[in-house]
Amino acid sequence: MKQLTIQSSSHAYDVIIGAGLRKKLSQKLGKSYKKILIVTDSKVSSLYLEDVKAGLPDHENLSHVIVPAGEASKSMEQYSRLLDKCIEEQLDRSSLIVGLGGGMVGDLAGFVASTYLRGVDFLQMPTTILAHDSSVGGKVAINHEQGKNLIGSFYSPVQVIYDTDTLRTLPDSEVRSGYGEVVKHALLSDMDWVKEVLSEDFSELSYSQLGDHLLAGIKVKASIVEEDEKEHGVRRHLNLGHTLAHALESDLGYGEITHGEAVAIGIFFAMKVSEKVLESTLPVDAYSAWLKTNEYPVEKLSNLNPERLVNRMKWDKKTIEDRIHFVLLKGVGSPAVVPIPEDDLVNHLKEFIEEVIQIDERD
Amino acid sequence: MKQLTIQSSSHAYDVIIGAGLRKKLSQKLGKSYKKILIVTDSKVSSLYLEDVKAGLPDHENLSHVIVPAGEASKSMEQYSRLLDKCIEEQLDRSSLIVGLGGGMVGDLAGFVASTYLRGVDFLQMPTTILAHDSSVGGKVAINHEQGKNLIGSFYSPVQVIYDTDTLRTLPDSEVRSGYGEVVKHALLSDMDWVKEVLSEDFSELSYSQLGDHLLAGIKVKASIVEEDEKEHGVRRHLNLGHTLAHALESDLGYGEITHGEAVAIGIFFAMKVSEKVLESTLPVDAYSAWLKTNEYPVEKLSNLNPERLVNRMKWDKKTIEDRIHFVLLKGVGSPAVVPIPEDDLVNHLKEFIEEVIQIDERD
Repeated sequence: MKQLTIQSSSHAYDVIIGAGLRKKLSQKLGKSYKKILIVTDSKVSSLYLEDVKAGLPDHENLSHVIVPAGEASKSMEQYSRLLDKCIEEQLDRSSLIVGLGGGMVGDLAGFVASTYLRGVDFLQMPTTILAHDSSVGGKVAINHEQGKNLIGSFYSPVQVIYDTDTLRTLPDSEVRSGYGEVVKHALLSDMDWVKEVLSEDFSELSYSQLGDHLLAGIKVKASIVEEDEKEHGVRRHLNLGHTLAHALESDLGYGEITHGEAVAIGIFFAMKVSEKVLESTLPVDAYSAWLKTNEYPVEKLSNLNPERLVNRMKWDKKTIEDRIHFVLLKGVGSPAVVPIPEDDLVNHLKEFIEEVIQIDERD
Repeated sequence: MKQLTIQSSSHAYDVIIGAGLRKKLSQKLGKSYKKILIVTDSKVSSLYLEDVKAGLPDHENLSHVIVPAGEASKSMEQYSRLLDKCIEEQLDRSSLIVGLGGGMVGDLAGFVASTYLRGVDFLQMPTTILAHDSSVGGKVAINHEQGKNLIGSFYSPVQVIYDTDTLRTLPDSEVRSGYGEVVKHALLSDMDWVKEVLSEDFSELSYSQLGDHLLAGIKVKASIVEEDEKEHGVRRHLNLGHTLAHALESDLGYGEITHGEAVAIGIFFAMKVSEKVLESTLPVDAYSAWLKTNEYPVEKLSNLNPERLVNRMKWDKKTIEDRIHFVLLKGVGSPAVVPIPEDDLVNHLKEFIEEVIQIDERD
């Protein structure tokens, strides 16, 4: 079992990582709760909901609600439905909401917890690799049809309890997705760790090593959000790869590519642009080979329109300006936010798409 | 012009009180904003919206949205509609939302501002006496059909700009409503101020004195919320009169009695119970006479069922317990939170209703 304490602007909370923790929730809870509501999704519920319930003592005051699996549940409709459920179960200010699932469940349940009775305790139980990123840092949100995460709060959990056993049931695309954020945290950190991640072939993944990577990723994220929770400064570095990723996700249509797969491709783009704009020296070839080995879906770039992608990026940044602020790398462990004029960005993207597709077709 | 700085957990903000301020907003803004959205209601818009817009410079990036007047607009439906409007107007993180109106508008617009893009700047322009209370302290919320303010945030404005001219158009019931919170702040403060308020006949109200009362009320509220923003301790004292008030409002049906009228009656009850339970010496007769002079609608108590009111109080407290925690007065300026068993409370209420109706019928 591994443990880490994170300081948010309002309180400190522990992240606990280990095998089998889902069955021992009552031992791990920081205090006793009169009522507990578990929020989960239709996929995770069939796998782990009963284990989690069995690991909690007082069944009388324990309830659950299941939302459909998939990003579409981060909606105003499900948000409103979950609030109705909180009221129906008469959760009060000394109640707990548990988010059992991936990033979608965490974001949705966290937003409910942040606004029900102006805030009740929220416990994250991530069940994906990707959620090592979203479960830490206090960003919770739902989507609007015009864009992702447009409605939300900054609201930190009281605990994050991460059962690594739940990662064994992840499909390949979800492992790739999770490692999109792991490799980002490595690139924001140091070369030794980058080398270690880029040597990974996911088909031979060791779950003990995965636990180490999750902890290391959470440490990187935690140190950044502790310094800048509200994203006025260094937290923007965590957007490495995300500006293109969000544009890819919305342009391809949600569900066509996982978030972390899109991030991994977005990072590849950011590395290429860094070489051109900042003359950085980066492990681009090793990165390209890693994408290939692990079957990241770079071929999905082939039919995309660079101008349209750049238009999507403008709205995504939540700040409307003529130049788009991009996170680039001066080197491994050395990010920089660089404003790039729209036209330049379109050209960079055209070149990138051509190069990547050539590499992909060559083999 | 009067000014006061309030320290919230996240930032300090100014409250500015004066005649005609609604026409000079651009002079008062703390910084420049690329886009401004004014949220107001159907009553206030016809009186003051054009003045406020004329006092702002860049009409191109200025928009407004009008919700129906009345508590019913603090709904999930209007919340969702306002978020759509924010997106339609492409408000970004450097935009401002202005709440122009009474407590309903402030609570609704504030909740939108607190959750749009995880929080944008919010400026309160209260147009009622009552809103001197709600515009300070950072509580924003919408209602659920099961209860008031069940969905919301703690989110402080960047400024409160209070044009006392807008109070001249208030109907009598709204003046009574506002003074329900003013007299509460006086009772939590000192006897001199209590005497001053209880000598007021609203039909002869001086607007300069009213400005002083608003400032004094805001000072009381500010000093309490600065000490305890999240209501773990002394902030509960601000609930003086509110436990019965919320029960009255929901039992009579929203719109049948204004919030502050219900608070004034709730305070009368709390004073009576304080005399019995704590043997306090309080200006109960002067208070009773003041309610009478200013036509507070105490007769509405006559057909109410004490048991049903107590049941409503239990849910209102947002903490389900066997005993209801009531704010009582050991004396003027000396509140105390006292747990009262349900049965006792029912008996106190029975006696109170009988007494009050007798007083009312006697004259």
